[in-house]
Amino acid sequence: MSKSEIGLIGLGTMGRALALNIADNGFDVAVFNRTTSKVKEFVDDAGELSQRITPTETLAELVAAITPPRAIILMVPAGKPVDDQIEALRPLLDANDMIIDAGNANFRDTNRRAAETGDLAFLGIGVSGGEDGARYGPSIMGGGPKTSWDRVSHILKAIAADHKGEPCATWMGEEGAGHFVKTVHNGIEYADMQMIAEVYGIMRDGFGLGAATISKVFDRWNAGPLQSYLVEISAAVAAAIDPETEGPMLDAIVDAAGQKGTGRWTAIEAQHLAAPIPAIEAAVVARNLSSQRQIRAKGEELFGAAPHRIPHDILGVDQLEEALIAGKIICYAQGFEMIAKASIEFDWSLPLPDIAKVWRAGCIIRSAMLDDMAKALSEDPHRNLMFAPHFAKKLKASHIALRQVVAQAALHGTATPALSSGLAYFDAMRTARGTANMIQGQRDYFGRHGFEHINGSKDQHGPWAD
Amino acid sequence: MSKSEIGLIGLGTMGRALALNIADNGFDVAVFNRTTSKVKEFVDDAGELSQRITPTETLAELVAAITPPRAIILMVPAGKPVDDQIEALRPLLDANDMIIDAGNANFRDTNRRAAETGDLAFLGIGVSGGEDGARYGPSIMGGGPKTSWDRVSHILKAIAADHKGEPCATWMGEEGAGHFVKTVHNGIEYADMQMIAEVYGIMRDGFGLGAATISKVFDRWNAGPLQSYLVEISAAVAAAIDPETEGPMLDAIVDAAGQKGTGRWTAIEAQHLAAPIPAIEAAVVARNLSSQRQIRAKGEELFGAAPHRIPHDILGVDQLEEALIAGKIICYAQGFEMIAKASIEFDWSLPLPDIAKVWRAGCIIRSAMLDDMAKALSEDPHRNLMFAPHFAKKLKASHIALRQVVAQAALHGTATPALSSGLAYFDAMRTARGTANMIQGQRDYFGRHGFEHINGSKDQHGPWAD
Repeated sequence: MSKSEIGLIGLGTMGRALALNIADNGFDVAVFNRTTSKVKEFVDDAGELSQRITPTETLAELVAAITPPRAIILMVPAGKPVDDQIEALRPLLDANDMIIDAGNANFRDTNRRAAETGDLAFLGIGVSGGEDGARYGPSIMGGGPKTSWDRVSHILKAIAADHKGEPCATWMGEEGAGHFVKTVHNGIEYADMQMIAEVYGIMRDGFGLGAATISKVFDRWNAGPLQSYLVEISAAVAAAIDPETEGPMLDAIVDAAGQKGTGRWTAIEAQHLAAPIPAIEAAVVARNLSSQRQIRAKGEELFGAAPHRIPHDILGVDQLEEALIAGKIICYAQGFEMIAKASIEFDWSLPLPDIAKVWRAGCIIRSAMLDDMAKALSEDPHRNLMFAPHFAKKLKASHIALRQVVAQAALHGTATPALSSGLAYFDAMRTARGTANMIQGQRDYFGRHGFEHINGSKDQHGPWAD
Repeated sequence: MSKSEIGLIGLGTMGRALALNIADNGFDVAVFNRTTSKVKEFVDDAGELSQRITPTETLAELVAAITPPRAIILMVPAGKPVDDQIEALRPLLDANDMIIDAGNANFRDTNRRAAETGDLAFLGIGVSGGEDGARYGPSIMGGGPKTSWDRVSHILKAIAADHKGEPCATWMGEEGAGHFVKTVHNGIEYADMQMIAEVYGIMRDGFGLGAATISKVFDRWNAGPLQSYLVEISAAVAAAIDPETEGPMLDAIVDAAGQKGTGRWTAIEAQHLAAPIPAIEAAVVARNLSSQRQIRAKGEELFGAAPHRIPHDILGVDQLEEALIAGKIICYAQGFEMIAKASIEFDWSLPLPDIAKVWRAGCIIRSAMLDDMAKALSEDPHRNLMFAPHFAKKLKASHIALRQVVAQAALHGTATPALSSGLAYFDAMRTARGTANMIQGQRDYFGRHGFEHINGSKDQHGPWAD
């Protein structure tokens, strides 16, 4: 039996999908899973692709089944399982063999592992696109030594999603750069989903529209500037019928959102970087509050239900579309600003235009707009995305609607934390003279922190000391 | 010469003030500073208090000057200097001698130091109130072994601020509990200052009021429900005249705020705890954006200046006062919820009512409202502060004004990130059925994460898979 070009450990949902994708693209892959019964099951279910899959029952067998220098993908749960797996593999591997962590790792763990792997090669790759993406073409964000990436990039590019002939698999930089970019991707995903949920809330509670009508609105938006996977599936989610209630599925889902923590990682890293990403923070907060169901019910009892309903002559569906366009530009601007800051902080040279490109297909946040973002960032990666001519023009047209939406939601009691924080970000960034002079005055008053005088002299103090 | 009851290392602004405060309250204190010339200077300037101050020129001299078992306060910069100082002291000290870190430590460092000090006693105390507070009565939040606290609490209570006969010096719990509470204090301080800056912005840009008029408004508010140190000094800051321009000092201060990082720590810990504190996060973001001055100026050029001006018949100063009351309640509710979460997470039993009490005097966020908060938390520390009858009543009266302020600011282009995030928090917490069902639908659609059905069954999936 001929040897495999690559190995894969961990046959969970994502691992199985990725292994099938690799085989489907003509590469022989050796697989292993701790619960070995899963290996047989997997190969039995793989149909004709099983010809390219070598099942193994021990790590030693796995290693023996791969052509050296070897490359082995880990698809095991993030955290300790990854470290344990690396420990178990290490004595079986030769110098220059490569371990590729394709799980949802915290990039700080990837940095550490990259430093610890000694004479082994180590890549950390972010894989986005859910199960379907992993099976038929995910977006892949790679991090680690460029030479290691080059050794396996033909496989990763082959299995990745394709955007008009360009594979969505890109080397982002050294160490945990790939997992870092994936983390920010997930943070943006949180904010994007939250903004969609907010306009959904205005349609449902503010306009009194039913799920079927709302689905049609999302469908229409998906044919325009908002074309994106998330808007597309929002239409599908709103259209679905619950087999049990025979009413809209959406109305039968409890309004308490879970989170696996990657949005939270993004928020934490943004604070460490002093990178302002309020829309993403607002989305994390919103998920948090959504889980406090009983307390929210008590709150409604105590304060009474909000009026919610917004008269049609004040706000309409088209303004929601415009507001969402504005919100989306602002939110992505925050994400790319954070990546730019990280690039400097970690000395990574993160390729901003390529990041927008790699997100154009395969991943959860794929959208038409990302193509324009790639162009804008190619023109000038150092400029806030809101200021790029294409997006500045769009914002000039759409921020008025965003204002109306935020204002009417505020007046009628519908929470729009991500949209309103986005508006506040925009207004702060287009206001030459803000109000932090008051904060500087207070800080100097109570703590003699000093301030800059408008005449340009620094470390001035007010005349308040007596 | 008789020995001192306590020692103090670090004669910076805060250290000098604290040493004088200790002496002023009748305790003999031995002092040391790395730059020894500062020690002599300090004692020379101390006037008759110098009788109670023993200057020392080496650490050994300092240790010898204190009655055993000794207690030595560190007032050195946070981080490595504290570790270095502990290292240098350790060989000179006896078992049960005590080190008290009174600097602005990250509570995680305090946890670590508490675990490392071996047979020495170690306290971490948060001291708030700026230079004046340190000199004449700060608010002191203590953490570490209760027995250690009890050994020195008579001194700490004597030097602390006094609220109607109750000293503002309280033991919060083990390890870094004191520094943790101080961190949240600073986070709340950020949000409180930011909300004040936001209503200042509406008065200045929305109403076109001058600094002198704005000062009078703050003065009037300070005589009502908003009575607080921060509103008081905002009035003073707005009233001050710049000796150079001979115009209002406030107008001559550059609108770019600095930060020492404690607000950021609060935001990071909140994310680790999954505690929603959007008003504090918004305040950290606002300081960040304020520092991007040149980019903001470009933004104004590109998008044009916002109209800002709000007609008098739509919004007035009284509504700003109401909005600030609502915003303040909501913001403090977030801070106390975060403390409650930390108390469980770190197994600390943080005394919520006592925390409100210790903040009533001495510290930067001291206010009349904190007295009512202490009462509300004494009734039931497990209830969101917004839901306590006293504050629910106030919110019922004031949230309408908060809505108007947020809406009009949004429509007229004045950023109110903290107030609007506060409103979104309130609306989320008083809405029984939110919009996270859309997020759960999306998550299940692309990642089969599962959701709860309204019939109570968990881990359901939608009918979208085909």
